[in-house]
Amino acid sequence: MLNFQYYTPTKVVFGKDTDLEVGELVKQQGCRKVLIHYGGQSAKRSGLLNRVTGALDEAEIAYVELGGVVPNPRLSKVYEGIRLCRSEGVDFILAVGGGSVIDSAKAIGYGAAEEGDVWELYDYKREAKACLPIGAILTIAAAGSEMSNSSVITNEDGWYKRGYGSDLSRPCFAIMNPELTYTLPDYQTQSGCTDIMMHTIERYFNMSGSMDITDGISETLLKTVMKYARILREEPENYRARAEVMWAGSLSHNGLTECGNDGGDWASHRLEHELGGLFDVAHGAGLAAVWGSWARYVCDAAPERFATFARNVMGVSADLDAKEAALAGIVAMEDFLRSIGMPVSLYELGIEPTEEQILDMADKCCLGDEITVGCVKKLKVADVAGIYRMAR
Amino acid sequence: MLNFQYYTPTKVVFGKDTDLEVGELVKQQGCRKVLIHYGGQSAKRSGLLNRVTGALDEAEIAYVELGGVVPNPRLSKVYEGIRLCRSEGVDFILAVGGGSVIDSAKAIGYGAAEEGDVWELYDYKREAKACLPIGAILTIAAAGSEMSNSSVITNEDGWYKRGYGSDLSRPCFAIMNPELTYTLPDYQTQSGCTDIMMHTIERYFNMSGSMDITDGISETLLKTVMKYARILREEPENYRARAEVMWAGSLSHNGLTECGNDGGDWASHRLEHELGGLFDVAHGAGLAAVWGSWARYVCDAAPERFATFARNVMGVSADLDAKEAALAGIVAMEDFLRSIGMPVSLYELGIEPTEEQILDMADKCCLGDEITVGCVKKLKVADVAGIYRMAR
Repeated sequence: MLNFQYYTPTKVVFGKDTDLEVGELVKQQGCRKVLIHYGGQSAKRSGLLNRVTGALDEAEIAYVELGGVVPNPRLSKVYEGIRLCRSEGVDFILAVGGGSVIDSAKAIGYGAAEEGDVWELYDYKREAKACLPIGAILTIAAAGSEMSNSSVITNEDGWYKRGYGSDLSRPCFAIMNPELTYTLPDYQTQSGCTDIMMHTIERYFNMSGSMDITDGISETLLKTVMKYARILREEPENYRARAEVMWAGSLSHNGLTECGNDGGDWASHRLEHELGGLFDVAHGAGLAAVWGSWARYVCDAAPERFATFARNVMGVSADLDAKEAALAGIVAMEDFLRSIGMPVSLYELGIEPTEEQILDMADKCCLGDEITVGCVKKLKVADVAGIYRMAR
Repeated sequence: MLNFQYYTPTKVVFGKDTDLEVGELVKQQGCRKVLIHYGGQSAKRSGLLNRVTGALDEAEIAYVELGGVVPNPRLSKVYEGIRLCRSEGVDFILAVGGGSVIDSAKAIGYGAAEEGDVWELYDYKREAKACLPIGAILTIAAAGSEMSNSSVITNEDGWYKRGYGSDLSRPCFAIMNPELTYTLPDYQTQSGCTDIMMHTIERYFNMSGSMDITDGISETLLKTVMKYARILREEPENYRARAEVMWAGSLSHNGLTECGNDGGDWASHRLEHELGGLFDVAHGAGLAAVWGSWARYVCDAAPERFATFARNVMGVSADLDAKEAALAGIVAMEDFLRSIGMPVSLYELGIEPTEEQILDMADKCCLGDEITVGCVKKLKVADVAGIYRMAR
């Protein structure tokens, strides 16, 4: 096991009606002018934005609003937010939404707190030295951005989708009211559940060894999400199910599942990022579409780990040997994904990339073989292209 | 499940040689004068204090030292620390030790940051409004004070042992180097393992229902500590075992095991606190000595929960009905405690309280029936006395 740091300063305020506490929570940060950042019209239509502005009014906190964040959030919107923060003297960003909105808020926070083009962070050119304080009111359980240090932004100039992480951007608080997710369409709910599982799975498949505690927590999170994802297909307003999934989303991505290990593989995420940059697919669904092909491509490199996953998470029989169990676990995972309506191929995801597009994505993914992706196998451009082809 | 807040701002720096990072970590807090608070001579003899002062010197941070904290830390030492902080202009307290030292540091932090007698906090008279920032270098895995909001102090004037909790006292950082615990005597190691388990068990036995995630994490922590406590009997310098136990200690008491539940029972702790105040026993051993009697006294009130504990943690057969399983689980827990050298009665703990002492402890425990303790059964003076008698 490796040395680690674990740092999760986000105050989680979890449960029914917790969105009403937002005014007090911003006030505790000593901030005076809030940018309310959100996505589409649903936050308005549902009345949530009204409740938020009412709570800020009551706490005598000024605000400006910026909506219109889209899935795979765009750099142009980030620039718009940075300009608005500067012109309005904003000192706190309140993200009302899911991962896209919170990620966009983090990028705005970096950009408004320092001189220089914020894209340089996502383009591996420099490290952030400051970020405006951020709070989140979560409306989609998926990305885990509400407690994480990471954010992913898409640059429309070339459709590069890139992630950047720094503790500076961990939200001060995260308001998590599971009822706010009742009205999500099933496809988005299940795509979120898949994303949550993948955040744990990416870390579970590491090459450093881990701790019993970390593995046990990871297995608990995976089994819990599988149980309640199935329930949510039939009962979208089941509070317990929404709550378990929402809390799993945060714990899967706040660092708890990588204590003692090397941080995990993340090749599936890198492959999906290129898909998402080019085709604008739902992130979780994109992960579902490539994971099985990734797993089959690399499982020979870590059969024991895949077998442990199969036995402890997917319930595969202990009688199978490691290689058999590994493959049975991958099949069981794909069966589960199908059972919640997720695609397990690019075709099922609704996209049919040409050979040229595959080579282009693979090339971007590995920066033209400047880097490899993943750790179970260190994948080069040719490997990534091979996995995309397997996933078609 | 209940609404909850989860707030763990402590930066955990975990692993080999991490104590060398203390200078940088204090510097990041912007503090200038440190009180190094510690217990006996072992911190000096082991060279740890020298490494700490060396790291502070290198970071150009001034310090004063105050040693001599004892198990069941005393109020008089807290007062001494408060006076020293004021006279020396201390703005940061660095606790080098286990739960007693960190708890004492928290009490000093409260006392030095505000006017008024700090004992009023522990005597339920007022709430804290401020606390000096605290850092910890952990040398005993047990109390979980390095990430918790709580502290327990013994007032020698009447031998009252009382706890107080506030997020103000959560350490800014916790340096956790498992190697620092290699030299602990086995009895202290196992007493620590018991304390860690009890912090999770107290919360696991709640009357509100919980979340699958919280229960799963709790069961993982308990099984992990049991596995590695046994290994440490034979191999006190097993790094993996020391690390798993140390990390379990923090996660058992930082709030993670009470997300969604009512916070748990805590009667065993209250019973032990009175024992500890009167007889000065090792905290974990005291818990071991009373838990089985508590469990038998209350298990009829929550047979299903005791059965779940028995099956999921103690490995009791699923074939037994709830009541049978509940009792088998209690027996299995006592067998485990015996296997790691812990007492399961007051006699085995080495104390034989008189009937008068039992009535006195029971009376103090419930403030003379002004309060009840526990939630599985709400215990009055007569119940508590009954449990002490069962435990003899």
